[in-house]
Amino acid sequence: MRLHRATRDRLVWAGVATLTEKGFSAVGLEEIAQAAGIPKGSFHSYFESKEALGRALIEAYADYFARKLDRWFEDDSHTPLARLDAFVADAKAGMARHGFRRGCLVGNLGQEMGTLPEGYRDLLSRVFADWQARTARCLAAAHAAGEIATQDFEDAAAFFWIGWEGAVLRAKLERRADPLDTFARGFLATLRR
Amino acid sequence: MRLHRATRDRLVWAGVATLTEKGFSAVGLEEIAQAAGIPKGSFHSYFESKEALGRALIEAYADYFARKLDRWFEDDSHTPLARLDAFVADAKAGMARHGFRRGCLVGNLGQEMGTLPEGYRDLLSRVFADWQARTARCLAAAHAAGEIATQDFEDAAAFFWIGWEGAVLRAKLERRADPLDTFARGFLATLRR
Repeated sequence: MRLHRATRDRLVWAGVATLTEKGFSAVGLEEIAQAAGIPKGSFHSYFESKEALGRALIEAYADYFARKLDRWFEDDSHTPLARLDAFVADAKAGMARHGFRRGCLVGNLGQEMGTLPEGYRDLLSRVFADWQARTARCLAAAHAAGEIATQDFEDAAAFFWIGWEGAVLRAKLERRADPLDTFARGFLATLRR
Repeated sequence: MRLHRATRDRLVWAGVATLTEKGFSAVGLEEIAQAAGIPKGSFHSYFESKEALGRALIEAYADYFARKLDRWFEDDSHTPLARLDAFVADAKAGMARHGFRRGCLVGNLGQEMGTLPEGYRDLLSRVFADWQARTARCLAAAHAAGEIATQDFEDAAAFFWIGWEGAVLRAKLERRADPLDTFARGFLATLRR
């Protein structure tokens, strides 16, 4: 059973890596199974369908990313605004490490929603809502610390995630960090107004 | 010859509509030919390959969209900032008309770049650079008219297009205009600072 679980996890993370780079439609089960090092024929011992795998990997990625946000946004050794900067710097380093080939799984799938199982729509929207709530808490802390003037934290966090996904898309297209910098700089300027 | 040209154009626009909704990887030549009302077998009288069709439709869409931007951004009956508002309102109405199923062809393909012909990368980046330049001219006019404080028009236009593509993606995911409004409102606030 433990081995089954470990192999299932390997499939999920191989799926995350492959889909983050190439999207859902362009990738077949064979490619994911191969990346996970399991025979394609045994895929269905782990997941009923590509749709079920997709759902599992959205959940795994959302959870991984929420923990990452908490690590940055709850780091008391930095001021709240410096935590946001640290998150941006980490995301830049992460994209650079993969040659700007990988974006954000949730942004990728959001873009592809027109051809995805309809049930993913709510799932993906709720992931963004969760990331926004975590970001809003960090912005509230920045306000409490006197770092920013903005008081509508929910709106500012929504603005951040809307634009940030655009920046990730563009960084991937241009294979460079400039769009991430341009967006982050502009966003921080809006907070200080 | 004129008929050939007309059929070719029909293929291009059928491709734009289909790919704007579903992306490049998920769509086959058969679906595009069918949407254009031509037999799949005759596709190759018009285009050498799916790659060649993709190139033609990126160019057609870029050109169509540049003319649309000019129509809004050079409309002297509105102040420069009101022109930007009018563009946003038009884009919202356009997305609503298609039930928020269609996004931006260039944004969609940008997101998919990991699996597209490498030659598209430059093409797509240049389209964004062109739209940005048109937007920067409108912002320069807004500054000249005393409507905005920002003087770095290039940077502000880059910020707009980075974030706007994120907003289009999110509006498509959530099937509503709110992300477009949230982003446009935040962007206009940065200009006034």
